[in-house]
Amino acid sequence: MNFTMDASTMNQISKNMGSLLGAKTTIPVLTGVLTVVQENEILFTVSDGADTLVQRVMRSDEVEINTTGTTILPKDFFTTVRKMRGQIEVCTEGNIVTVTKGKTELSFTTMIADEYPKIAEQAPLSQLRYSGPTFKKIVESTAFCAATSETRPVLTGVNLKMEGKQQTFVSTDSHRLGNIHVLTSDCLEENTNVNQTIPASALTHAAKTFDLSKDVFVVNYKNMVAFVNGNVIYYSRLIEGNFPDTSRLIPQQFSTELTFNKNELRDTVQLLKEASQDSVVKFVIDESLFVKISAKNELAKGNAEVAYGEKIGEDLTISFSSQYFLEALNAIENEIIKISFCGAMRPFVIRSSDENDTSLQLILPVRTY
Amino acid sequence: MNFTMDASTMNQISKNMGSLLGAKTTIPVLTGVLTVVQENEILFTVSDGADTLVQRVMRSDEVEINTTGTTILPKDFFTTVRKMRGQIEVCTEGNIVTVTKGKTELSFTTMIADEYPKIAEQAPLSQLRYSGPTFKKIVESTAFCAATSETRPVLTGVNLKMEGKQQTFVSTDSHRLGNIHVLTSDCLEENTNVNQTIPASALTHAAKTFDLSKDVFVVNYKNMVAFVNGNVIYYSRLIEGNFPDTSRLIPQQFSTELTFNKNELRDTVQLLKEASQDSVVKFVIDESLFVKISAKNELAKGNAEVAYGEKIGEDLTISFSSQYFLEALNAIENEIIKISFCGAMRPFVIRSSDENDTSLQLILPVRTY
Repeated sequence: MNFTMDASTMNQISKNMGSLLGAKTTIPVLTGVLTVVQENEILFTVSDGADTLVQRVMRSDEVEINTTGTTILPKDFFTTVRKMRGQIEVCTEGNIVTVTKGKTELSFTTMIADEYPKIAEQAPLSQLRYSGPTFKKIVESTAFCAATSETRPVLTGVNLKMEGKQQTFVSTDSHRLGNIHVLTSDCLEENTNVNQTIPASALTHAAKTFDLSKDVFVVNYKNMVAFVNGNVIYYSRLIEGNFPDTSRLIPQQFSTELTFNKNELRDTVQLLKEASQDSVVKFVIDESLFVKISAKNELAKGNAEVAYGEKIGEDLTISFSSQYFLEALNAIENEIIKISFCGAMRPFVIRSSDENDTSLQLILPVRTY
Repeated sequence: MNFTMDASTMNQISKNMGSLLGAKTTIPVLTGVLTVVQENEILFTVSDGADTLVQRVMRSDEVEINTTGTTILPKDFFTTVRKMRGQIEVCTEGNIVTVTKGKTELSFTTMIADEYPKIAEQAPLSQLRYSGPTFKKIVESTAFCAATSETRPVLTGVNLKMEGKQQTFVSTDSHRLGNIHVLTSDCLEENTNVNQTIPASALTHAAKTFDLSKDVFVVNYKNMVAFVNGNVIYYSRLIEGNFPDTSRLIPQQFSTELTFNKNELRDTVQLLKEASQDSVVKFVIDESLFVKISAKNELAKGNAEVAYGEKIGEDLTISFSSQYFLEALNAIENEIIKISFCGAMRPFVIRSSDENDTSLQLILPVRTY
């Protein structure tokens, strides 16, 4: 193979690979990148065995394809090219790839492409289309709530369930939950039987890699999902097992509701967290015009008051993890948020005050000290 | 005590403490910051037992001092204030310090100031003055060459030796060496007996913390050194033991000398390092107008040519650590550098082509493969 492109194009490809490039794996060929040079395009495939990212670069004025071919380029090839500038020439001869820029040339040993695992072809169950911002919103509302420990593998994923015209994405680590509803107006092939759990890490990687000015297609297979965005495809294995039914966890009726300026509340809680034990803060909602927020640990304590916009319902005292609370606030774009409680020991809900925003964050309180 | 100041002033103080704040130590009071509020100034002292940083804030329009007092503020106080904005009020009552900003207040347990170790008063042996940029240049030319391992403790320092009107700063990890001469025109109290080894980490911390638009005074004591810069003093214990005599290590006569554009050489060596074994690169200097640079390891190899400006002397083939070489280039400000060799197995010298620059970098070659 022989092609030339700008080093910056190759760097973007290499950057998009993220932790998939050189991932720890027992299959030697997966330490490299399958590179297929065809007459009109070059395909770069990187995989850690579970997730696979395929990126395509089209022939153009900047990308010249002189000879086709297939090989596995090692990680070092990509880390080296990251330090190069301007037009580079890439050329293989036997099991050696050489990248040349002016009078500088670097050669690396390649691997045999035949051994690279193929992605099993399957018939898609459904194909959904989202605008870039909608896809980002789905990921940012849910993925961070997934469990990071493998104790219950299914909780490390984001569950997608389609019921009639409505899709629900939800994830929970059993202390908090992120949930978003999306209407199936953008569904290309309707299939209401989808109920699958996508690794949260795959969604996060895809959202970070994708060009969100373009649409994202989510193609569902029996045990796999593919996210397609422009010239990039991200394949991920699904997580097996039944995702718990979380719909009954989300309260529908509330005894206390307040609106807040998100940034003011966030800054205050962030400060009080410094004086907290295990990040726990306490909210006291009474007849005054402020919510009294407090925290304490062995060596410190903190008190603050934050004004709320509107209050409906009863007085309340409730304690919870400020860490979860701050992460939930970060997931909401709007300046004004609404927090809805239904008792000191019941989960509470944080939402945008904008009713078009169909995402919600739910947090379980801790016993008040 | 009771004072008010802008949170950003406190943050700068806290930032300057660097790793001294909350350093690992067996003396509990050293985990905090000795805070002495006097009528016209506030002194913040932080120490890890070996190094001590004293910062002074003067009473001003922005810094109001209402009540004087002395206490030890805990690390958490400073990390919390880093998240605050605007004017803050700091007030102690018993062993509790409270920082207040509007309706938010945070309290922390303080420690008793009596237990804080005092810096032993000594008569200074000499006092030297440097402009900020000169001090920075001294540190940047030497400190990075010091050993990081404690095998030979004296090599973790930068040696300062005064001979007549000339001061020499030198440090070496026995594979490379950084050296700079400074003329003693700025010496306030002349004393030609100074020969002391200052921890490289103390110099680096001081140079990073200091306001280099102001002069730096170096006050030498028997077993201590103080760097004074505006309202900041950095005290460091000296390293005991005889620093090796490095003057004979630096060759005075050379068989080959070349000049280079520093950035071009750096970028090329940086690239070839990716294909090197243990970062070793080889320079081949022959009758051509380019230096041929190469590197190889089990899986990769690299070749490049870099044009030199001038060449005096013999042809030469020499191998050395590209890592040391790149760090040496970074220590030289000038665009054009001169490299002086005296044989394939002898140390070589890298200098600015500007003869007013009295610093030099020396690197030991490795056996050619």
